[in-house]
Amino acid sequence: MARLSPKPLAVSLGDPAGIGPEVVAKCWDNRAAFGLPPFVAIGDPRSLAAVWDGPIEAIDDQRDIDAAFDVGLPLIQIAAAEADLPGHPSVAGAHCSLDSLEIAVGLARSGSASAVITGPVSKEQLYTIGFSHPGQTEFVAERCGISPGNVAMMLAGPTLRTVPVTTHVAFANVPRELTAALIESRGRTVLRGLQRNFGIAEPRLAVAALNPHAGEGGQLGREEIELIEPAIAVLRGEGWRVTGPHPADTMFHGSARARYDAALCMYHDQALVPLKALHFEDGVNVTLGLPIVRTSPDHGTAFDIAGGDRADPRPMAAAIRMAAECALNRARDE
Amino acid sequence: MARLSPKPLAVSLGDPAGIGPEVVAKCWDNRAAFGLPPFVAIGDPRSLAAVWDGPIEAIDDQRDIDAAFDVGLPLIQIAAAEADLPGHPSVAGAHCSLDSLEIAVGLARSGSASAVITGPVSKEQLYTIGFSHPGQTEFVAERCGISPGNVAMMLAGPTLRTVPVTTHVAFANVPRELTAALIESRGRTVLRGLQRNFGIAEPRLAVAALNPHAGEGGQLGREEIELIEPAIAVLRGEGWRVTGPHPADTMFHGSARARYDAALCMYHDQALVPLKALHFEDGVNVTLGLPIVRTSPDHGTAFDIAGGDRADPRPMAAAIRMAAECALNRARDE
Repeated sequence: MARLSPKPLAVSLGDPAGIGPEVVAKCWDNRAAFGLPPFVAIGDPRSLAAVWDGPIEAIDDQRDIDAAFDVGLPLIQIAAAEADLPGHPSVAGAHCSLDSLEIAVGLARSGSASAVITGPVSKEQLYTIGFSHPGQTEFVAERCGISPGNVAMMLAGPTLRTVPVTTHVAFANVPRELTAALIESRGRTVLRGLQRNFGIAEPRLAVAALNPHAGEGGQLGREEIELIEPAIAVLRGEGWRVTGPHPADTMFHGSARARYDAALCMYHDQALVPLKALHFEDGVNVTLGLPIVRTSPDHGTAFDIAGGDRADPRPMAAAIRMAAECALNRARDE
Repeated sequence: MARLSPKPLAVSLGDPAGIGPEVVAKCWDNRAAFGLPPFVAIGDPRSLAAVWDGPIEAIDDQRDIDAAFDVGLPLIQIAAAEADLPGHPSVAGAHCSLDSLEIAVGLARSGSASAVITGPVSKEQLYTIGFSHPGQTEFVAERCGISPGNVAMMLAGPTLRTVPVTTHVAFANVPRELTAALIESRGRTVLRGLQRNFGIAEPRLAVAALNPHAGEGGQLGREEIELIEPAIAVLRGEGWRVTGPHPADTMFHGSARARYDAALCMYHDQALVPLKALHFEDGVNVTLGLPIVRTSPDHGTAFDIAGGDRADPRPMAAAIRMAAECALNRARDE
């Protein structure tokens, strides 16, 4: 198998009661078919044993990961206070998922791993143990010394990459959360991320309009005129290749997608609806603006199907593969 | 060629300076490859001659259309006061496009045509001659004695049909335009339209949420709880098969689409982004709630490319084909 990255990848299993352990195990089972380079999982071995009878290679020294990967699933073991049953999350499991995440980030920060792939966690469970971040992304940003406001969540599939400017915001609050400064800052993070993570020297960014028909010259809303166009002008003034504001409905068909490297969207569903319509099985969440590479599959813990051998490993495989590619692009750059 | 509908279809050419004449002519040229049943065009013969050198069969008696269709493009002639050059719209052309539309609707209302397909018009031009409707849809509704508020604009492609509840509304105004009564009424129009136009006896309607993650139980917006769920409950109470509110981002991938016959969306781009991402070349605009069948290609006059032989006829062909299928389903029903 081609070695895509110089160091192994670190994969946190996420909540031990969710589908994270199952999809990571299935990725190891299908590592050749999925084209996956060596990775090490981090989590509770009991969460793997509960859903999988494959071989686990306990890792004490990170230098052993590559050799171990051919024999079994390399695992840095986190022992939860008690073992969860699949589909039955607990406080102990929440601690375990947080410890796994912490170690995965530490491995990448120290250079022992070339990237972090994070399995799905339960925010509800994490909140009960005092976790105060909106999600894993903000936690990772803080551990890297980056303000969460300066990272961007990219959803990336084989033919489309999108980034929402506003994320988990009620529809009615989007217009008041949008500012020219925010659009400009997110755009810059995306452009730099396309260079660093994707190796695109002169990235092309397409900026979506907020209103239908891009506001029809102000008749259907003025955000294009007052916020989006000025932000685009600033980025262009810095020499970036930026177009828009584009009517969102004609931005995502095949020949339109070929004209840009990423679409900057104004709100959550504007970015996620086209991405998941086109790339539901292989869309990957990539955090841009970090000193490390971090990806995750774009699905949750799916407690309702955990333990039933029904979880689709393709999103996790896509996240591992994309992390390897990003790590390689960064290594080339350095 | 299979005769799909009992009477010919009436196709208005739209603005004579737009791409309507070109795409209709190309549809006749490729009538066998596109699988098109006999249709009659309505418009100015000079607008066809300016962009096409194929044979035109002038129609005086509608009973001649079927026989004429094998020889040339059947045309009910509207003489504009002066001939437009492609790409150069005029007041005379606006009158011509309105007259064409009026006659097409009249043919369908009288039973001489089984459906109306409307070519693209210029609203800006129509406004200059006193046209006071937001678009052709509302004009057709009025001519059929239906309140424009009681028709629904469906976008239909081979694997997805969507209908926006609110249409040409600024993003910030969507929350105040949405009401439970409007969602309920649009939903009912769509369900009846799926029965009448598409021949689906027990149609399944999937209703989209407005907020990301369907509002997360009210944490990210309350429209799901206050407006959408009550509307769904009313429709279900009437015996309709209705599901939702569904998070919009997980509604439009392949296996999700297989679970419903149409998606009811809360705003313009929520309906049009996934439709055009998946079906840009063959998405059709179908007006539901009318006593007649009316479809149109989902593109505009494209004055910028008119006359250059660059217009893609596939959307018009899809609109003609879908009109024929809807007419056949209605005829079976009667």
